[in-house]
Amino acid sequence: MGTFALFRKFSPRFTRCYVRYQHVDSSKLFLTEFGDPAKVVKKEEFALQLADMASKQVLVKMLQAPINPADINTIQGVYGVKPNLPFTLGNEGFGIIEKAGSEVKNLKVGDWVIPGTNAWGTWRSYALEEEKNLIKIPNDLDPAMAATLAVNPCTAFRMLQDFETLSKGDTVLQNAANSAVGQNVIQIARHLGFRTVNILRNREGIEKLKQDLQDLGADYVLTEEEFRASKLFKNGELAQPKLVLNCVSGKAVIELVKAMAENGTLVTYGGMSRQPLIVPTSAFIFKNIRLVGYWMTRWNWQHGSNSTERKDMLAMLCNMAKQGSLVAPKHEFVPLDSFQEALARSCDTTRFHETKFIFKF
Amino acid sequence: MGTFALFRKFSPRFTRCYVRYQHVDSSKLFLTEFGDPAKVVKKEEFALQLADMASKQVLVKMLQAPINPADINTIQGVYGVKPNLPFTLGNEGFGIIEKAGSEVKNLKVGDWVIPGTNAWGTWRSYALEEEKNLIKIPNDLDPAMAATLAVNPCTAFRMLQDFETLSKGDTVLQNAANSAVGQNVIQIARHLGFRTVNILRNREGIEKLKQDLQDLGADYVLTEEEFRASKLFKNGELAQPKLVLNCVSGKAVIELVKAMAENGTLVTYGGMSRQPLIVPTSAFIFKNIRLVGYWMTRWNWQHGSNSTERKDMLAMLCNMAKQGSLVAPKHEFVPLDSFQEALARSCDTTRFHETKFIFKF
Repeated sequence: MGTFALFRKFSPRFTRCYVRYQHVDSSKLFLTEFGDPAKVVKKEEFALQLADMASKQVLVKMLQAPINPADINTIQGVYGVKPNLPFTLGNEGFGIIEKAGSEVKNLKVGDWVIPGTNAWGTWRSYALEEEKNLIKIPNDLDPAMAATLAVNPCTAFRMLQDFETLSKGDTVLQNAANSAVGQNVIQIARHLGFRTVNILRNREGIEKLKQDLQDLGADYVLTEEEFRASKLFKNGELAQPKLVLNCVSGKAVIELVKAMAENGTLVTYGGMSRQPLIVPTSAFIFKNIRLVGYWMTRWNWQHGSNSTERKDMLAMLCNMAKQGSLVAPKHEFVPLDSFQEALARSCDTTRFHETKFIFKF
Repeated sequence: MGTFALFRKFSPRFTRCYVRYQHVDSSKLFLTEFGDPAKVVKKEEFALQLADMASKQVLVKMLQAPINPADINTIQGVYGVKPNLPFTLGNEGFGIIEKAGSEVKNLKVGDWVIPGTNAWGTWRSYALEEEKNLIKIPNDLDPAMAATLAVNPCTAFRMLQDFETLSKGDTVLQNAANSAVGQNVIQIARHLGFRTVNILRNREGIEKLKQDLQDLGADYVLTEEEFRASKLFKNGELAQPKLVLNCVSGKAVIELVKAMAENGTLVTYGGMSRQPLIVPTSAFIFKNIRLVGYWMTRWNWQHGSNSTERKDMLAMLCNMAKQGSLVAPKHEFVPLDSFQEALARSCDTTRFHETKFIFKF
């Protein structure tokens, strides 16, 4: 517990005066070179000076922040944007307002907030920030949901909305269905009235996993082998999907393309197989499919990560969460001090996506 | 020479009466089963009864009709549409009106025409057809240009127009640059003010071939190996292409994708390598490229092969041809009787696209 917190605990009134010239004990994870996440990430402990807080700023105490695949790739130096170093890590998470400057209008002590911008640096225990760079979220959400709201559910929502005009009852096909995005796709698609066909790698405990996804609202869950042998679309049980979401790439794309409806769209947002996509030429010419990509970061750049459109989307997702129709992915909390172990385990791509590690501050 | 032609030669006036109850000796190439083009294509000679000609019909004497890759694939039974059998072959070509019915309004004897519909069956010496199913073209075009107007130049034109909004000076990248479509792309792009970077397979006589394409207006012509080593886009000599046209597929797509501009479009209209496309996942996500397909047949279905839009396009292309800025691809005339040899040679994919065989009736 930092000096500030200790004082506050025993004397709220005293603290209010005291913080004007005091600090909070803070820590952050940061990067000075790219490389193996278990090795190059450094932790710094420092005193965040509250005297530096401007009148339009708030003091945010971070509560939770997940480790996403994009964080791992950023640390490895293989992500789509390479940040300038040194770089404070963490792209999503949520915090609580502990103090608000005199000119802060829309946020107050006790509010929950998420960053309004990409790559804000959520792996830190405290931050001073202007209110315009933060987005308020309801403070009665499941905390793990709040921590994982900004990236994966938004990715799932946009992919379901922005590429094909789907009607109720239409089918969406996806692989990597157990990934965090995959779980969000299942839930948001159900909310919007679309059916989902979900492909998984075969693995230990597959029946339990299938049941978990069905419990989230998945209509069909199949292993890659089962999907290849399946006649779901051939026997007319389901209309061929106009929208296909790909997080795996590699040869398996051929099966996705075979299943697609004429004029359909395949959206690639990940490449878990670490292989390029293999796509039959004839599908482009005679089936007129199109292949596009999706990257949440780009959408935020293009639309403004603090835009009305993003706030509306977040509000809808929060509403779904509060109704219980959107839940956080399977996760495990870790203290910031265990960051090396958590990062090492997050790099194990054989177990990638089985559980998401969330730093709890 | 048929009976009709013989009579006409000696007595035009007599013929005019005579044809009312006579016939023309006609022949056609047709299919009763799919398979090896040199074996399954049959020729039929028959008397086309002119007494059957309706008042809204014309008698078309076909003059020239090319063998296109699509014809070969149709015969092999591997094309995107499998016609009902028996099927009269030939998808493009042009003819001359030899006789017009009393109610024909817009066509007259001596006019040149091309089919208004897909798969009309151009590999026949004569046809009776309603004027609404034919499109008049100028009868002072180079005949080989007239014969090859409907498929490849239209494909090139649509691909240059329909997928990206290009400005003068923008670059278009294509492979299979020596194919008939490739040659059209070079010429139409130059006409529209776009620069072209053209990739070829290395082969015997490559320097001559490069010069030929430069003479057509190609800005850069490179072998696959030269393109891979090239720094054209890296050194800023040229802006990265927003539009890339692919007729080869296979691994070489990786090089195309590397060269592409962010948010660019790769249009696939062929797969000469007989390999699927190999596309890096990261290009979809971080570069936001999109991959689409193009098929002239589909465009004709969607827009109407006899539509105003198609007629406008053909008029523009004919105008380019008359100005000398669009010429027919390298070609070799063959009589219909030599169809077996011509088809066999057209199946030799190692020499595919080096010369186009055109039936001359």
